[in-house]
Amino acid sequence: MSPRPNRPLPLATPAGIEVLTKILTQGPIPRVEIARRTGLSQAAVTKAVAPLIEAGFVTDQPVAADPDAHIESQLGIGRPVSPLTVVADSVSVIGLKVTPTDLIGVTTDFTAGIRAVRHCRLPDTAAETVTAKLIELARQLIEEIEDPASLAGPLVGIGVAVSGDVDAVHGVVRDSPFMGWRDVPLAASLTDSLDVPVVVTNDVRALTVAEHWFGVGVNADSFAVVTIGSGVGCGLYINGEVVSGAHGVSGELGHLPLAPGELVCTCGRRGCVETVASSDAILARARETTGKPTLDLSGAIELAHAGNDDAREAFDRAGEVIGSALAAMVNLVGPELVVIAGEGVADYDLYEQRMREAFAAHAFGAAGDCRLMLRSHTFDDWARGAAATVIRSYVRGEPPLRR
Amino acid sequence: MSPRPNRPLPLATPAGIEVLTKILTQGPIPRVEIARRTGLSQAAVTKAVAPLIEAGFVTDQPVAADPDAHIESQLGIGRPVSPLTVVADSVSVIGLKVTPTDLIGVTTDFTAGIRAVRHCRLPDTAAETVTAKLIELARQLIEEIEDPASLAGPLVGIGVAVSGDVDAVHGVVRDSPFMGWRDVPLAASLTDSLDVPVVVTNDVRALTVAEHWFGVGVNADSFAVVTIGSGVGCGLYINGEVVSGAHGVSGELGHLPLAPGELVCTCGRRGCVETVASSDAILARARETTGKPTLDLSGAIELAHAGNDDAREAFDRAGEVIGSALAAMVNLVGPELVVIAGEGVADYDLYEQRMREAFAAHAFGAAGDCRLMLRSHTFDDWARGAAATVIRSYVRGEPPLRR
Ligand SMILES: [Zn+2]
Ligand SMILES: [Zn+2]
Repeated sequence: MSPRPNRPLPLATPAGIEVLTKILTQGPIPRVEIARRTGLSQAAVTKAVAPLIEAGFVTDQPVAADPDAHIESQLGIGRPVSPLTVVADSVSVIGLKVTPTDLIGVTTDFTAGIRAVRHCRLPDTAAETVTAKLIELARQLIEEIEDPASLAGPLVGIGVAVSGDVDAVHGVVRDSPFMGWRDVPLAASLTDSLDVPVVVTNDVRALTVAEHWFGVGVNADSFAVVTIGSGVGCGLYINGEVVSGAHGVSGELGHLPLAPGELVCTCGRRGCVETVASSDAILARARETTGKPTLDLSGAIELAHAGNDDAREAFDRAGEVIGSALAAMVNLVGPELVVIAGEGVADYDLYEQRMREAFAAHAFGAAGDCRLMLRSHTFDDWARGAAATVIRSYVRGEPPLRR
Repeated sequence: MSPRPNRPLPLATPAGIEVLTKILTQGPIPRVEIARRTGLSQAAVTKAVAPLIEAGFVTDQPVAADPDAHIESQLGIGRPVSPLTVVADSVSVIGLKVTPTDLIGVTTDFTAGIRAVRHCRLPDTAAETVTAKLIELARQLIEEIEDPASLAGPLVGIGVAVSGDVDAVHGVVRDSPFMGWRDVPLAASLTDSLDVPVVVTNDVRALTVAEHWFGVGVNADSFAVVTIGSGVGCGLYINGEVVSGAHGVSGELGHLPLAPGELVCTCGRRGCVETVASSDAILARARETTGKPTLDLSGAIELAHAGNDDAREAFDRAGEVIGSALAAMVNLVGPELVVIAGEGVADYDLYEQRMREAFAAHAFGAAGDCRLMLRSHTFDDWARGAAATVIRSYVRGEPPLRR
């Protein structure tokens, strides 16, 4: 049996879910505007909103931090406009991101706003070690939430973001090359110890959900989030929903066969984008070209910035393949916007030009007209993505885990 | 001003459109089942269906050709089950497919069932020539529909399918390398001459709409249609809708940069899939490897079937790149089903093995679990796709053309 959220939402109908989603992602928003955007009648919106206000999840009082709402209510003729806002502190969520060396944990409010951050070093990547450390980190964050001084709402769920092939329905990490994991039932282990609903998700998909609900996606009909760093990933939002893949796999931009076939990827396949574009691949290449076998990544970046052609070549090669991969992606799905994110963005200037050249050379017709937007992401953002995924499941009333 | 359909549908609400779509694509279907699948109340379904029955677009009488409906109504306890079916002959649609050498025209009924086929040779590919021939062919098909002996319903629209970058909203072919066209306002020309709503669409997307509404897509949550022949194309159906691309371009599988960079594509870019996988590319390669400069495609197929290694090499090379392209596509969007279609399917046995090997080598994890299904397509099917696109626009009440 899966635990129920501590504070269930009073949402009985699909219309109620749609209305709350609009308030959460597009608020402050007047009732009449929700009706316009959802196609529901104003009466239906009012009916759906009433129990949410009653239960303290939504408010129609002006929020101090929101000057627009204030102005609108001053300008109102006759009856005040009273736009609707989510009560951020009505619930708390925990988001956890797993990397081979560290765990990153955040607590957020109902709007995915980060309230607390905690990092934790990992002694090794064994599934048992990492699971135990995740439980420890989650307990610390739960304690902070439960501290009355924090003013935080009750915890409604925990999200865990892991790179690789994740079966979110059953909460199992099927294959994570970075962690060296296969079939790790992470959600079951955490749920059993913590008695809280747990969602386990692919990390790039989590970031995409966060952008969809609380980021650039609110104003884009379709977009891609491309992450560059220790891996190369991609989350897609098309036709009103994040693309999840019929079998749980999608957005594997780092494993498109666009690099030379003699290079073997960490996933075991040949010619994957990551064989030249991951930070490990860039470093290995820079060591080779510069003849400095003990170079580290920041050293390679420094050399390249200083104009060392040998070091630059490793970044050029990465930029070229990333640009081709971006072109392949836009040629297939044609998003309105591509957000480039990830740790690798710190060295973005080193491969940006080659990347843009390769993109322009291979983007087909109007597919190349999509906006390319750079976003600096930290590891905290990955953890926030896991929290956003929990918020989405919570609002939709999705069962957190099927065993 | 765009002409209105000859026989407008009595659909006032989004619920009405949803109900008719279910009857059209999943009928015969009982009212209670429509309610279940749409989430509408049974009262709402009954209310939406009444004017459609009244106006003769839908019937709840058993259809002679449908044994299931017959059995169901015999088994009914108390009130008969009376599943709903679309009246196929209530409207007619014309679908036209443009190729560099021929036009193919079909008339279909409301369920995209082909009623008549006409082909027409093209003397050249100039936009004026082709437009005039399209109008001539459409007039012949209109005459057949209007012949009282045909028993066909009134014509509600004409669809034209063209390969390349097509702006369906404005009815303009922006860029069609095969035809050598740029910015040809095909819809406006046809509408002006024929006074019928005209939809112009990318041909692969049209095929995808036909599969979505009247083919494999009825039972798949997500699928891709991959066409192999004079070009390599791909239509995607994800998250409840055909992927159209923010700027009108998507599914350009033939222009992913997966082939050697020294090969220049008909589109002007380097290393596109089509540089080795189009039928022209296969033929050029076979001429080169066999040293027979006058070989034609059927000759190359014959040689390869006879075991000639030089001829086989051209097909092997195509199969390898097509397999990589399929893997790239499933790694990105993870469809449940991939339908392989197109003229090239006649020689499918010649590259199937290499294609499957390359696919298996590059498909990432569970993305490779999608079903690969072979579908032999004729040019008539392309034209039927154009007709299906018209049926979709007609049911949705979409404006056929914005100038
Ligand atoms: Zn790989
Ligand atoms: Zn090309």
